[in-house]
Amino acid sequence: MQTDLNAALDIGGTKIAGALVDDRGRLLVRATRPTPAQEDGAAVMRAVAAVLDELTAAPEWSRTSVVGIGSAGPVDAQAGTVSPVNIPGWRDFPLVAGVRERTGGLPVVLVGDGVAMTAAEHWQGAARGHRNALCMVVSTGVGGGLVLNGRPHPGPTGNAGHIGHISVDLDGDPCPCGGRGCVERIASGPNIARRALAEGWRPGPDGDATAAAVAAAARAGDAVALRSFARAAQALAAGIAATATLVEIEIAVIGGGVANAGDILFAPLRRALREYATLSFARDITVVPAQMGTDAGVVGAAAAAQQYREDVLAGTTA
Amino acid sequence: MQTDLNAALDIGGTKIAGALVDDRGRLLVRATRPTPAQEDGAAVMRAVAAVLDELTAAPEWSRTSVVGIGSAGPVDAQAGTVSPVNIPGWRDFPLVAGVRERTGGLPVVLVGDGVAMTAAEHWQGAARGHRNALCMVVSTGVGGGLVLNGRPHPGPTGNAGHIGHISVDLDGDPCPCGGRGCVERIASGPNIARRALAEGWRPGPDGDATAAAVAAAARAGDAVALRSFARAAQALAAGIAATATLVEIEIAVIGGGVANAGDILFAPLRRALREYATLSFARDITVVPAQMGTDAGVVGAAAAAQQYREDVLAGTTA
Repeated sequence: MQTDLNAALDIGGTKIAGALVDDRGRLLVRATRPTPAQEDGAAVMRAVAAVLDELTAAPEWSRTSVVGIGSAGPVDAQAGTVSPVNIPGWRDFPLVAGVRERTGGLPVVLVGDGVAMTAAEHWQGAARGHRNALCMVVSTGVGGGLVLNGRPHPGPTGNAGHIGHISVDLDGDPCPCGGRGCVERIASGPNIARRALAEGWRPGPDGDATAAAVAAAARAGDAVALRSFARAAQALAAGIAATATLVEIEIAVIGGGVANAGDILFAPLRRALREYATLSFARDITVVPAQMGTDAGVVGAAAAAQQYREDVLAGTTA
Repeated sequence: MQTDLNAALDIGGTKIAGALVDDRGRLLVRATRPTPAQEDGAAVMRAVAAVLDELTAAPEWSRTSVVGIGSAGPVDAQAGTVSPVNIPGWRDFPLVAGVRERTGGLPVVLVGDGVAMTAAEHWQGAARGHRNALCMVVSTGVGGGLVLNGRPHPGPTGNAGHIGHISVDLDGDPCPCGGRGCVERIASGPNIARRALAEGWRPGPDGDATAAAVAAAARAGDAVALRSFARAAQALAAGIAATATLVEIEIAVIGGGVANAGDILFAPLRRALREYATLSFARDITVVPAQMGTDAGVVGAAAAAQQYREDVLAGTTA
């Protein structure tokens, strides 16, 4: 017997990815468009529509019963709107209504991209089998999501787990979000590179001044590069420890480009965690790299759709 | 018809309070003993047994079906043990087994005192009707608990919501917990007084150097006293904002002796929250004083017992 499928959309500042996904997380049909992030809102929505047109034209569409969307945030799951920081043409944009209109009125579930990535890691990746987990992406920004009591915890508006914008340094540098000393302000890739440059690190002949280049320098023993990663690790550790202390998690999963630095990040991170996660119930937390690759977004959006279906079958969602 | 009752125990460093509580939160029978906190573990357990003897001797005992315990932490709800920081004779002490033995084998539910206080405020107090809330006690220490998706969130070990020991100042002063720059290290009553004294504030002729005296000086316009409360408010704001950003809460309820300072604390706290709770889904959080008085502990322990009964009836707990 052929099972029902979920349609999934992953909406980011660079690309819009779509897929039809089966109940084991396999992507049966794929479609992708670049995000015209600097154009107006209608142009961005046309790119979404082009992805949906490809999906609905596939023979598998007839088996699709729910649409899941993971979007760059902030999102508002209650209103069905999104205001992605890096898509200026969309502010309180009615994405759910637009998608529902183009998918024959199917139920549409919206969550933030951090929640979607977390749902993917919990369903198929490094957080599988864990009842309480934090999953993070450390990249241009720092995002995340939570699994609590065995289920993804999107929160009422779909944005919970936003660990990049908790302050771990209340007198620290101003953050573009308006706060101060946020985890992202210290630990994101651009901030790792900025700090290394400010302290005298210089890129090689290729001119690469990204966090990946700082990681390469750190691996070669550059003290400034090592210090910049250690500082990022310290901020991440304080944020992870805060999460463990607040909601009790057993594992933190870290993905994104900065996590590719491997032990340059993970070794000082695990050391710093011992300093900040001190209470008996928080100190045994495990930190591991993410397992899902570039498909985490669509797989996570499909997981959100799947969860919705199971809740409807269980009668816990209207 | 007479409904079932819950037995409740509130175990702190100063006193052990017990009660039989009906399904509306009314205390029908009460018993209390001082905590012999500096004696050995057996002596503390004898005080608990004396409270239980009074409760089980009451005619209402025959209607009691579950025992709830809220205890100073850390606790381990899975192991049924407690290790209260301020009761040195109890380390991994098997409190649940001891209570079960003295209550005829009734089911016993254990949570931390922050979770219990939160359950009380959610059932009967300032968090009533809110689906997502943080409740805090700011006093000698800083404790707390969470309501998520309409229910108290104890976490697997019963300690979730421990906001006093999240770091909001990663390079800050060492905290007795082993961490650095914890909310409690900045915002507790003793730390408010310590900071005021260090900056030149002096107690009046009565020699009262507590946070309450600092609050009185602040009300009279003393600049150092005002600054010490403002700093405590800033740390509390960073912690509350972190909680709102991580799990999405709509209200923060603050009780405990330091909260009695009223606007001396709440006015700078609400101002500082606007600085740290910046994301769209976090910035509308309300901060209000707690409503439950000294009975919050036993009422909360009864609420935990009541929740257990409802879960058993609903079939979600074995």
